[in-house]
Formats: sequence, structure tokens, C-alpha cells
Amino acid sequence: MNMELGLVIIAGLLAVLYGVWQSRSILAADAGNDRMKEIASAIQEGANAYLRRQYMTIGIVGVVVAIVVGILLGPLVALGFVIGAVLSGIAGFIGMLISVRANVRTTQAATQSLAGGLSMAFRSGAVTGMLVAGLALLGVAVYFYVLLAMGYDAGSRTVIDALVALGFGASLISIFARLGGGIFTKGADVGGDMVGKVEAGIPEDDPRNPATIADNVGDNVGDCAGMAADLFETYAVTVVATMVLASIFFAGEAGPLMLLPLAIGGVCIVTSIIGTFFVRLGKSNNIMGALYKGFIASAVLSVPAVYAAVMYVAPNGMGAIATGSDITGMDLFICGLIGLIVTGLIIWITEYYTGVSARPVKSVAQASVSGHGTNVIQGLAVSLEATALPALVIIGGIIATYMLAGLFGIAIAVTTMLALAGMVVALDAFGPVTDNAGGIAEMAELPSEVRNTTDALDAVGNTTKAVTKGYAIGSAGLGALVLFAAYTADIQHFIETANGEGFFAGLIYGGTEVAANVVNFSLSNPYVVVGLLFGGLLPFLFGGMSMMAVGRAAQSVVVEVRRQFKEKPGIMQGTERPDYGRAVDLLTKAAIREMIVPSMLPVLSPIVLFFVIQLIAGPGPALSAVGAMLLGVIVTGLFVAISMTSGGGAWDNAKKAIEDGFTDSDGVLHEKGSEAHKAAVTGDTVGDPYKDTAGPAVNPMIKITNIVALLLLAVIAHM
Amino acid sequence: MNMELGLVIIAGLLAVLYGVWQSRSILAADAGNDRMKEIASAIQEGANAYLRRQYMTIGIVGVVVAIVVGILLGPLVALGFVIGAVLSGIAGFIGMLISVRANVRTTQAATQSLAGGLSMAFRSGAVTGMLVAGLALLGVAVYFYVLLAMGYDAGSRTVIDALVALGFGASLISIFARLGGGIFTKGADVGGDMVGKVEAGIPEDDPRNPATIADNVGDNVGDCAGMAADLFETYAVTVVATMVLASIFFAGEAGPLMLLPLAIGGVCIVTSIIGTFFVRLGKSNNIMGALYKGFIASAVLSVPAVYAAVMYVAPNGMGAIATGSDITGMDLFICGLIGLIVTGLIIWITEYYTGVSARPVKSVAQASVSGHGTNVIQGLAVSLEATALPALVIIGGIIATYMLAGLFGIAIAVTTMLALAGMVVALDAFGPVTDNAGGIAEMAELPSEVRNTTDALDAVGNTTKAVTKGYAIGSAGLGALVLFAAYTADIQHFIETANGEGFFAGLIYGGTEVAANVVNFSLSNPYVVVGLLFGGLLPFLFGGMSMMAVGRAAQSVVVEVRRQFKEKPGIMQGTERPDYGRAVDLLTKAAIREMIVPSMLPVLSPIVLFFVIQLIAGPGPALSAVGAMLLGVIVTGLFVAISMTSGGGAWDNAKKAIEDGFTDSDGVLHEKGSEAHKAAVTGDTVGDPYKDTAGPAVNPMIKITNIVALLLLAVIAHM
Repeated sequence: MNMELGLVIIAGLLAVLYGVWQSRSILAADAGNDRMKEIASAIQEGANAYLRRQYMTIGIVGVVVAIVVGILLGPLVALGFVIGAVLSGIAGFIGMLISVRANVRTTQAATQSLAGGLSMAFRSGAVTGMLVAGLALLGVAVYFYVLLAMGYDAGSRTVIDALVALGFGASLISIFARLGGGIFTKGADVGGDMVGKVEAGIPEDDPRNPATIADNVGDNVGDCAGMAADLFETYAVTVVATMVLASIFFAGEAGPLMLLPLAIGGVCIVTSIIGTFFVRLGKSNNIMGALYKGFIASAVLSVPAVYAAVMYVAPNGMGAIATGSDITGMDLFICGLIGLIVTGLIIWITEYYTGVSARPVKSVAQASVSGHGTNVIQGLAVSLEATALPALVIIGGIIATYMLAGLFGIAIAVTTMLALAGMVVALDAFGPVTDNAGGIAEMAELPSEVRNTTDALDAVGNTTKAVTKGYAIGSAGLGALVLFAAYTADIQHFIETANGEGFFAGLIYGGTEVAANVVNFSLSNPYVVVGLLFGGLLPFLFGGMSMMAVGRAAQSVVVEVRRQFKEKPGIMQGTERPDYGRAVDLLTKAAIREMIVPSMLPVLSPIVLFFVIQLIAGPGPALSAVGAMLLGVIVTGLFVAISMTSGGGAWDNAKKAIEDGFTDSDGVLHEKGSEAHKAAVTGDTVGDPYKDTAGPAVNPMIKITNIVALLLLAVIAHM
Repeated sequence: MNMELGLVIIAGLLAVLYGVWQSRSILAADAGNDRMKEIASAIQEGANAYLRRQYMTIGIVGVVVAIVVGILLGPLVALGFVIGAVLSGIAGFIGMLISVRANVRTTQAATQSLAGGLSMAFRSGAVTGMLVAGLALLGVAVYFYVLLAMGYDAGSRTVIDALVALGFGASLISIFARLGGGIFTKGADVGGDMVGKVEAGIPEDDPRNPATIADNVGDNVGDCAGMAADLFETYAVTVVATMVLASIFFAGEAGPLMLLPLAIGGVCIVTSIIGTFFVRLGKSNNIMGALYKGFIASAVLSVPAVYAAVMYVAPNGMGAIATGSDITGMDLFICGLIGLIVTGLIIWITEYYTGVSARPVKSVAQASVSGHGTNVIQGLAVSLEATALPALVIIGGIIATYMLAGLFGIAIAVTTMLALAGMVVALDAFGPVTDNAGGIAEMAELPSEVRNTTDALDAVGNTTKAVTKGYAIGSAGLGALVLFAAYTADIQHFIETANGEGFFAGLIYGGTEVAANVVNFSLSNPYVVVGLLFGGLLPFLFGGMSMMAVGRAAQSVVVEVRRQFKEKPGIMQGTERPDYGRAVDLLTKAAIREMIVPSMLPVLSPIVLFFVIQLIAGPGPALSAVGAMLLGVIVTGLFVAISMTSGGGAWDNAKKAIEDGFTDSDGVLHEKGSEAHKAAVTGDTVGDPYKDTAGPAVNPMIKITNIVALLLLAVIAHM
């Protein structure tokens, strides 16, 4: 077992080494002229200032939570929490450090060639991607190794609780980072556009707009650092949940199957690293094609790699462990394969709904011709429709993997899906770099060819950003059953080991029914329906709260920009420099303030629901309601998140389609500045908080609810 | 039992008599000058033409379905289907007949006084309201009576299947009517505004706009006939489901408890009729207050009336029937009371989210100041947030009633909630009449004071419309468990009576487990999660499809109106009359065509899911998945519907707030024609299909899914 764990740790270290090596090569590149350097350093300062303050705030919450966890569950569990939180923070922070340096270098590279710009931006994304996957794998594997070395049994409660707490640490950082970053970036974007484009009539990224640096900072803290934290937690929580499931299902002999998710993660990091070298612009100059080459190479190489991992770690599947099980290693491998197929299908569907050339985006562009209202109606219709196919893919994935290898099969599929996170994050973190590169080109007044090159890169970034979000939430949908299974298995475990003492002993009515059905999860139990409805309302309420937060943050930007325009009339003439720092500072405060309340919603909801129902109806119904809540939150969350992220992507690219010249069904051409374009800008504005704040934050929200529920069980078992 | 049934039938007849009497008094009123009569008759013709064609199309589908039901389940069941369908159609049709005659009389009355206009519009609404409640109650009670008289046992399968089929007939009409009417009305509204207000710059309801008659027709076929069909089915399905539950729970001795929902319906019709006489404009000229007086009177009077009904029909509660049950008549009465409280709270919450003077609408108005995009963002945020409180109220209702009297307690609460449907529909059907009255005043070029009077009435109509939708979907949320319980109880019944033959006999593995848990509805069953996700996707897909349908219908109106403006240049000068009929005709065809596919979605989904899962995994998982689907569709449907209807109401009234003069947070006044107003118009346009097409149609969609699943069980039991 030590041997295999060692190999996994080496794979994680490899990813970190890749990051270091690529970072050095990026930093060695030319950062352009002085004006460009000056702009880039303003962005760097702003991003640093924001993240410092964000981490400080999270740190305060984190220390309090760590202490509470430590008191309730012991120091090793609290340490797990700290490891998860710190590593997640580091992945986001370093990713952003590179991103704010790669942006200006991408602009500079784009002055030479498209291929150069693409390479620079992608390598920067790859640093973030590999750090996310590598640090998440390292965190789990090393801490697992240390706990084993300390003499704890692989399947012991301390190990499980410590790993779950590690997931909790990652989740808590992630919801703050996603939400705070999302509010910052969209507050800057929406607010800046509202005064700049609409009121003052100056183009996007115009240096005269005091919010323009804040907008660029936002790309980095939201789309780079926030996204990295989100995927870090998705990766960590999935691996941990699969390990917990293995430990509980195959109690005592769980070792090999607990290793399996780590092994799959390890080999896929290697295939992801190899995949990055396949990203190369072909003769056709197809940027999306170049990125896909990398993804496809990773996915194809992962097939034999996952096969090797399964056959090495668990050649006999579950047969050797679970008595009477005829689930072979081959079955588990096929589950992994299904995970890869689900990933591919979700990427393909998301691209269909957000890509410039397919029906949905064209229909939104066409609807813009008849006005603002019809643009928004069509965009909303597309966003609602876009949920159906991904849901069907997830349903298919659940059925196929369950029939092959039961709940553990589903877990292996999700793990394999997320094992490619390094590559997927690389494609995504490419986006903010190109977005910034375009902004720097505009502000440094470089020739328009440079801006055209960065714009071409940026359009692809819109789609890859939507793809990652679909992927993250899709894995949550497929993984819902795994997390729920961990919850029910935990309850069963606590009941079996209650020994007549504590909370769970009270659940064994008559002393005979020691089984999962002590707690009734049947749909005909009203408390299950109550849990489903309560869970179901969370994504809606959370979405509403975060959209309002963006509105308020944007409003504060509007006020500040108007004030600067008024007090410094020279700004518009280009004779006076706007105070970029103040806008960044204001937004920082607004974003940090606004992120707190919505973030606490998923943390507190399971706890409140549990105690309220316990008070009213007793412990059994309380456990039923909280369990059902975990599924309720995913049932609505899946659809809310997909509709928001895909709808937002469609709106954004419909606007881009018109900017590139859109010929409507009557043969009339609509371009930048036309009435249709104005309507499309409205749609894009609506889509901004949809796709970059509320939608993506639903994913960590779901995870937190689940993880808190698992920890809650551990706590009440201790009481 | 005959005696009680007789009384219920008398109450139903009373409602019909009230309708006839009020209709006569309405028709006797003055219909204004010739121009007004001419306009009104154009609206009448259009509405008749539309409904004729809609009913013809539904008729074809209906005959096919009736034949299929007859072949599969026998002629009495098919007859039930026909009764439900025909009565639902009649309620909508007559309601609309009165509504298109009351509109012009309301305009005429408004030339005299506000009180006169209010009275005319409300009495017209009351006709529809009493017909909906009266005919629904009569249909169920009389057919139940006939079946008993034919010698069938109250709890026999024939009786249950026939009643469920009656609900199905009502549901099928209702989804077509809601969707077809909704597409028509919003196609006319959005399309007419787009060319009229935006392109040609003429005001709403301007007689020069060729779509203006279609817009008025739409109010009647959508908001009156469509809404009536919707509430008819909600009423019928709830009463039937409660009766089915009683018959299965208390098999053999179910009589009195099967009568209870009918008795509650009967007494509340009487209290609703009395309540209508309390609607009177006080000295303060508060229209909403006048309407609420009627509602409050009905609700207050219903308390002793429901008490009397329970004590008369089931004085011993369930104690006399279910062995060992200590649920008293008092417990059941309190459940009814909770139903009334839930109704009151939902009305109150909906009014908060859509009323002109509260925070949500003001926040949308404020957001309009900074542009189209922020208006839509804030409206979406409000729409998402608006789901939370109603969901909590429903959760509270479920817990309280279940603790008092189990699942049957929940059923009694929903029944009592819907027993007030007569009054609630009266408040709602008031809306289209006042909307039309305003249009007629504008087109007939009456003095502006008349328009001001009708506008005041219309603003209240916006809120009452939102309230009814919240009420209907809220009852669906509370009733979800009742319908699911009917489904599981049915499965149990079929298994117990399988006698070794047919589909259900195959489910009894080993022959010992004859119980509900033969079919596993636990959340840890993956097929349950599959069902939840599949059910969950339906409201989203359905919403997307119906929004797109409105877009296409509106587009066809735009093309037609543009064509008329171009070919008849005299229209804009007022020298030539537009061809109103062609716009109505076009829209009729578009709406009928567009309503078919989305309507079939909930009908076919349970059937497809059942057979697909049966093929893959066998009958047990198939029944589990379909059952879970019933809850999945309500878990997302509840939130989707509430967010759409409340959000749409908020947008609409934010626009009205600006038209009445809105002072923003900086103290600037915004009025009709300002930039803020334009942004608010965009929001209103978005809200239109949200609140009047997609959102309200989710309610019948949920019911159909449930009813089809129940019939599916009956069919496979026969196979």
C-alpha cells in the first residue's frame, strides 16, 4: 500500500514541478513596452490587494471553524480542515500570480503571432490546472499517508473524519473565492459598462474608464483564482467521498479500494501533463481545435492509464473484498471509461449551446434584432432548454455505472471524470489571461491587429469557461448519489457502533433493527419531502442573493466612476489619469462584504434543518430530512447552475456574433453599434452575473451542504 | 351517504345558479356607444374563433385519448375522462363568454364611477369563479353518485379509476388551454408592443395597431379561459386525489372520508358566494381592499363551515374507521384550518413580491434607472428570491398537518385550500376584464378620466393574477405528497390483489413481501435519483419550450403588423382601418400549432420513463423511477413556477410604478417615456411569457405527470 501511495505522491509532485517549470518559462518571456508593464503592474497590485483581503477575511472565518472542528472532532480532523483550506488557497493564489504576469506577455506575444499568444495564454492556464489537480491529490494522499503512518487504520473514523474535514476546508475556501471573486469581477464588468459604454459612450477597456483596471483584476480573482478554488474542492471532495464510500462499504479491508481514486488521479495527472504538449495551432489557425487536441490527447491516453491503475490496484475488482461480489476490475475500468465519456458529452453539449455557430446562439442573435426584450426572452429560453441534455447524460451515466458496479461504480466514474481536472482547468484558466491581454492591448493603444488576435483568443475563452462550469456541475450531479451514499452509510456505521450510548443509540428502536432503514429515506416519508423542498430552495435563494450582490457592487462602481468623471473633467479629454486604485479598493470592500451572507447559507442550512426537525419530530425525521436535503439541493442546483452558465455563455457569444457581423433571417446585416447590438449587450449584461457569479457558485454550494452534513453526523455521534 | 352527496350536489348547483343570475345582470347593463360595441364585438368574434379552433384541436386529441382509455380501462373510465374534459371546457368557455361582454360594460360603468367599474368587472370574474368551483364539484360528486347508484362500491377500482380519469380529462384540457391561451396572449402582447411601441412609436392599445384586438382577445382566452381550465383541474385533481387516498387507506369503509373533500368543497362554495357580496368599494377608494374584503369574508366564514362539514361527515375523524387511529374530527378540522392559513400566507407573500409599494418592486424600478441590463438582473434576482418564503410555508404546512393527521391530514389541508377556488378565481378573472376595459376606452377614444379609472382597476389585476398563480402552484406543492401517496398506495393495492397474475404479481419476489416496500422508494436507490433528476428536468425543458413558442408567435405578429403598415400607409394616418382579423387568425394558428409539443411532454414522459427503465432494469426500478419522477417534477416545478410568476409580476408593476412617477434613490423623478421607463418596458416584456405562459402552465404540467402515472398503474395492472 505504501508503494502505491508513494507513486501517487510522485504524480502529484510531478504536477507541481510542471507548474514551477512552466512558470519560469512564462516569466522569462518579454513583458512588452513600459506602458504595457505599467498597466500590468496596476492589475497585479489590484489582484494582490483583493486576494490578500479576501484571504484575511476567509482566514478569520477559517480559524473559528478550525477551532470549532478541533473541539468537536479532535486536532487531527481540524488539521485536515486546515490542509484543505490552505492548499486550495495556494492553488488559487499561485495560479493568479502567474495569470497576472502571463496576461501582458500574451499581449506582447500576440504582437508577433497568434500561435505565440495562444501558447503563452495556454501555458499560464496549464500552471493553474496542474497546481489545482496536483495540490489536491497531494493534500489527500500525503495526509492519508501520514495518518496511516501514525498507526490509524485506513477505514478508521479518525482517517475518514480527517479526510472529510480536508474536503470541508477546500469547500469553504471555494465558496468564498467563487462568490467573492464572482461579485468583484461582475460588479466591475456590469458597473463599468453601465457608465462607460452606455452613459459616456466609450468602448470597453478604454483607459479613460476608471473601472477598467478593476475589470481586469476581476478576471483574475474571479475566473482564475475563484475557478481554481472551485475545481480544487470538486476534485478533493470527490476523491474523499469515494474513499469514504470504499472504507465504509468494505470495512476493514478497504485499503486497495480506498487507493483506487488516488491511483486514477495520479495516472491522469501524467496524461494531462502529456496532453498539454499537444496544444499547438495547426495550419487552419483553429484555436478551439488546438485546445481540443490537448484535451483529446489527455482523454485518449487516460484510457489505458486508468486501465493500468485499476488492474494494478484492484485487479480483482470488489470480488476479493466484498463477499459474494462478482464485480471485476474490468467492470470498474468500464465505469471509469463512462466517466470519460460523460465528460466528453457534457463538453460537446455545452459547446453546442454556447458556440457561435450553432442554433442556440444564432437564435439569441436573431432575437436581438427585434429588441432588448426578445433577446432576453430567447436567452432565458435557451438557458432553460440547455439543462435537458446534460441531465439525460448524467442519468445515463448513473444507470450504466450502477448496473456495472453499484454505487462504488458511480464513484469511480466521477473520480475519473475529475481526474482530468488538470487539463480542463488549463483550458479554462486560459480565458482570463486572454481577456486581460485584450484589455492591455486596448489600454496600451497597440495596433488594432493585436487586439484582433487577442479577441480571437478571447472568444474561445468564453466557450471553454462555460465548458468547465458544465463539467464541474455535471460531476456534482453524477456524484450526488456518492455523497448521499456516504451520508447514509455513515448513519448506518454510527448506529452499528453506538454500543448503547449517545445520539445514535437512541435511534435503535427495540434494539433489533440495526440497519440503514432505521432512518427512513423513502419518498413516502413527509420529512424526506420536506428535505427535498428545503434543499431545493437553496440554489434559488442563493442565486437570487448573489445576483443582488452583483447589482449592489455594480451600483457602487457606477457611483464612483460618475464621481471621477465629474470631479476630473480631464479624464474624458485624456489629459487626466483616472484613479484606478479607488475603484479596485471600493469593489474589494463591496465584494468581501457581499460574499459573507450567501456563503453562510449552505454552511448553516443543514445544521438549522437538523435541529429544527429534531425539535419538532425527533432524531429519525431530522436525519431523514437532512439526507433528503442533500439530494434536493442537487436536483434543483444542477438545473439552476447549468441554465445559468450555458445561458450566460449563449448571451455573451450572441453579442460577439453580432460584433463579427450577423446576417438576420431577412438578410439584413447587423454590426457593432446597431440596435441589435445594443439589445445583445443587454443580454450579455444579464448573462454576466448569471454565468460568472451565481451559476458557478452553485457547485461549491452543493458540496458544502453535503460535507457539512457529513461532519454533522460525526459531531452528533461524538455528543 | 346519499343525503350528504345530495347536499354537496345542491351546493354545486347553487354555484351554477349564481353564475346564471350574475350573467343575466351583467348582460342587462349598458354596453356603451356604437364604437365601443363595435370594438367589443371584434374581441368577441376573435375570442370565439380562437376557442372554437382550440377546442376542435383538443377535441381530436381528446377523442383519441378517450378511445385509448376506453379500450384499456373500460367505458366508465373513459366516460369519466370525457366528463372532466367537457366540464373544464365549459367552465372556461362560459367564463370567457361573459368576460368578453363584461369588458365593454366595465368601460361604460367606469365612465360613471370607479365603484361601478369595479362591481361590473368583479361580478364577471365571480361568474367564472363560481362556474369553475361549481362545475368541478358537480362533475366529481354527480359521477360519484351515479357510480354508487350503479352498484359499485365507493372504494372499488372502477370508481377510483373513473374519478382519476375525470381528473385526467380536466388536466389535459387545462394544459392545452393554459399553454395555447398563454402563447396567444403573450404572442399578441410582445409582438404588438415590439412593432407598435418600439418601431412605430404609438401607445399601447392604439387602434392603429393591427395587433391590438388580438391583444385583447388574448387576455380573454389566456387569462380568463386558460386560467379557469387550470383552476378547474387543480380543484378536480385535488378532490379526486383525496378521495382516492381515503378509499385506499380505509378500504371498504372509506365512504365518509371519501365524502369529506366533497363536503368541504360544498360548504366553501356557499361561503364564497356569500363573500362576493362583501366586495364593495369603501370610502378610501381602495380597490385591493374591496377585493380583499370579499376574500376575507369567505375565509372567515369558511372556518365554522369547514368545522360543521367535518363534524357532520366524519365526527370521529379516522378513529371510527382506521383501527387504532386516534385522529379525531378536530384534528382533521385543524388541518383544514392550516390549509386556509397557508392560502392566506401565500397570498400575502405574493403581494409583497409583486405589489407596487414593497421593496422587491421598488428595487426593480430603481435598477431600471441604470439601464435595461440591470433591470433584468434585479428582476431575475427577485424572481429567484421570491421562491423561498412560499416554499417554507409549504414545508411548514406539510409538517404541521402530517403531525396532526398523517398523509390524509395533508390531503384535507390542500382540499380546504382549494375549496376557496371560487373566490380566488373571481379575483383573478377580474383582471382580463379590466385590462380589456382599458383597451376599449383607449380604442373608443373615451376621455382620459375613463382610462385612468380602468388603469387603477388594471394595476390591481396584475397583483391578483400573480396571487392566483402562487396559490395554484402552492397547492400543488402541498399536494405533491398526496398524489405520490396515491401512487404508492395504488401500487400496494395492485400487488395485494394481484392473485398471482399479471404485471404486479411478478413483483412479489419470494411471495412474502406483500407490502409497499416491494417497490423501493428510498433515496439510496439510484433509480429514485434517476426519477428525481428526470422529473426535475421537465419544468425546465417545458419552460424553455414555451418561452420559445411565445417568441415565435410574437415574431409572426411582428411580420404581419409590419406588412399591414407597409401595404396600408393610411393606417398610421388614421384614414385606413387595420385588418384586425388577420392578426387574430395568424396568432390562432400559431398558438394552436405551438401548444401541441410542449403539452405532450408531461403526458408522454412518465410512459417513456417507465418503459425505458423497465427494459433496462426491470419492473421494480421502473415503478421506483416513475414515482420519484412525480416528486422530481414538483421539486423543481414549484420553484420554477413561483419564480416565473412572481418575477413577472414584479417586472410588470415596476413598469407601472415608473409610469406613475418613480423617484429614485438620488431623488430624480422618472416617468413614462424616460430612459428608466424604456428599461422597465424591457423587463415587462421579459416577464410577460414568464408570468403568463411558461410559469402558470407548469402547474397543470405537474398534475398531468401525476395523473398519467396513476392511470399507467391501472393500465399495467389490467395487462
